[in-house]
Amino acid sequence: MAKRLYLDWNASAPLRSEAKAAMSASMELTGNASSVHAEGRAVRAAIEKARAQVASALGADGAEIVFTSGATEAAALACAGSDLHCAGIEHDAVASWCSVDLEVGAEGRVTVPEPERACLQLANSETGIVQELPAGLAVSDLTQGFGKLPVAFNWLGCQMGLVSAHKLGGPAGVGALVLRQGTDLSAQLKGGGQEMGRRAGTENLIGIAGFGAAAEAAASDLAAGRWEEVEAIRNCLESALEADCPDIISIGQGARRLPNTLCLVTPGWRGETQVMTMDLSGFAVSAGSACSSGKVTVSRVLQAMGFDDLAAGSALRVSIGPGIVREDVLRFAERFTAAWKRARARMK
Amino acid sequence: MAKRLYLDWNASAPLRSEAKAAMSASMELTGNASSVHAEGRAVRAAIEKARAQVASALGADGAEIVFTSGATEAAALACAGSDLHCAGIEHDAVASWCSVDLEVGAEGRVTVPEPERACLQLANSETGIVQELPAGLAVSDLTQGFGKLPVAFNWLGCQMGLVSAHKLGGPAGVGALVLRQGTDLSAQLKGGGQEMGRRAGTENLIGIAGFGAAAEAAASDLAAGRWEEVEAIRNCLESALEADCPDIISIGQGARRLPNTLCLVTPGWRGETQVMTMDLSGFAVSAGSACSSGKVTVSRVLQAMGFDDLAAGSALRVSIGPGIVREDVLRFAERFTAAWKRARARMK
Repeated sequence: MAKRLYLDWNASAPLRSEAKAAMSASMELTGNASSVHAEGRAVRAAIEKARAQVASALGADGAEIVFTSGATEAAALACAGSDLHCAGIEHDAVASWCSVDLEVGAEGRVTVPEPERACLQLANSETGIVQELPAGLAVSDLTQGFGKLPVAFNWLGCQMGLVSAHKLGGPAGVGALVLRQGTDLSAQLKGGGQEMGRRAGTENLIGIAGFGAAAEAAASDLAAGRWEEVEAIRNCLESALEADCPDIISIGQGARRLPNTLCLVTPGWRGETQVMTMDLSGFAVSAGSACSSGKVTVSRVLQAMGFDDLAAGSALRVSIGPGIVREDVLRFAERFTAAWKRARARMK
Repeated sequence: MAKRLYLDWNASAPLRSEAKAAMSASMELTGNASSVHAEGRAVRAAIEKARAQVASALGADGAEIVFTSGATEAAALACAGSDLHCAGIEHDAVASWCSVDLEVGAEGRVTVPEPERACLQLANSETGIVQELPAGLAVSDLTQGFGKLPVAFNWLGCQMGLVSAHKLGGPAGVGALVLRQGTDLSAQLKGGGQEMGRRAGTENLIGIAGFGAAAEAAASDLAAGRWEEVEAIRNCLESALEADCPDIISIGQGARRLPNTLCLVTPGWRGETQVMTMDLSGFAVSAGSACSSGKVTVSRVLQAMGFDDLAAGSALRVSIGPGIVREDVLRFAERFTAAWKRARARMK
């Protein structure tokens, strides 16, 4: 039996060996980072090392890195009560706190009339479409871009950024809010002075250590050109599908996209059916965002881009990363097109 | 050189081997618990296993366990906007959301006129003093009791409970809010259906797996009587100090206390000086709660109990756990009383 193939990196990337090693090492530390004794200071040092690693990987030296329990918490910290505007392609963790009224063009590009009152993602998790961030932007969700694209927070021109560890090979349950120094922001979790008073609660040492190591390794992969290889493999998959089944729509093909993402629409073949079919064939892929906790329905992102419910309910996301090779994606293409042909035949 | 001795278990307990093993095993899983494919379902299963372990250890079968990033987040979720009352001995993570106006008796016991509008801890982190929880209590902070005392949430009579993994040998940065089934509570982190809609955000798989394993091991230690041994060692330390230096005040000696905690007051010898002195001698102890992020000042808990600033600024907490033996605490007693005698001599 062929081994299973994990093609759902945008939902959660495989844990990097560097992250595992850093987490295992941090398991040997005992103590609370807020304690003043030697044990506490060692924990504090490990956290500060990770903070520097994340800042460096993110081009955010001098900015504040506030560790959170993930990008969802970072989004709440950045956006709640701030009267921001966003488009319908934003993740629910952002859109829940904003007026969802910014316009989305057919190619997925968002118009931002007032950047200082807006939240705009760097890259979309479902389509991979990359936005041009306007200068003066209040908040950018960098979750999907960080680790896959060269990102320099200090040059993006936005006030705050959201990032997540598990999208770049760190553990789930840890992320950060990045702030330009001097940004006014009050804590939502209270009761301790941690994270410079921005976020109370004993720090997730093990997760933070894993995040730091993963961010450093991700930046090193990017610098080594590994994501250009990923892009070539993704394009190879796209071409194979196109050649065999020209009726499969590849979303965002004309736009700037993440190097690893394909969003495929096969009108009439429901996304959840595709996921289950391919799962049984040994491939882990996804229909839209994973974050709706198992509820796979119609893609809100594609709807916001103007697709009808039939198309938005028939989308599949394939997202890959370093280590996935040409043979892997061609194997997927073969099984996927065969399944689509069968599904299409049943529809007639 | 004698090896360092970690006597600050209430700040953070050493990570249990069972937790390390569970975390290492969960590092081999790839995927997002919300994904419907096999990889996602395996992550989901690991999280649900941990949820059952925590529920069982906590005597909370049938109650809802909502995993959070720690007790601080659980406190915010339970208490924010709920117009609850508490006493000054509560942790800041609780007190920040409450009217701090409940009366504390000299022995540290809190009077609760309206339990359904109050938050009361099971045990105090600094003094170890255990409260009788009144029936119908809205929220109880079980953080310090869970794992050290037999606790059965279903019989405590409170609506919600807060717990933390790293106080019982799990990793820091994970905790839970426990709710009687059917409790009305809206999410504070939004943008995903995780945790039955109570708490959005991709789950901290590794931390949660460690919490589950640690909770199970803690319950097993309790059942095996290991905390009775801890209590005997603690009492041995208390007697040794009393015999050598009768002027050291041991707080809560007449009250029901956690089996592992000693809160010592040496009037005029500042807590932070004691911590630094003992740290240099190879002992990790603490002055008050660690959670004020390095700011060691006057104990708010002792102030709430009616101690003056001199006493409340001269408190030291020694907190131990299984594996600490008689020779360890006697070595501490010897060094501590010698240092106290020197400090006392300088004060004259």
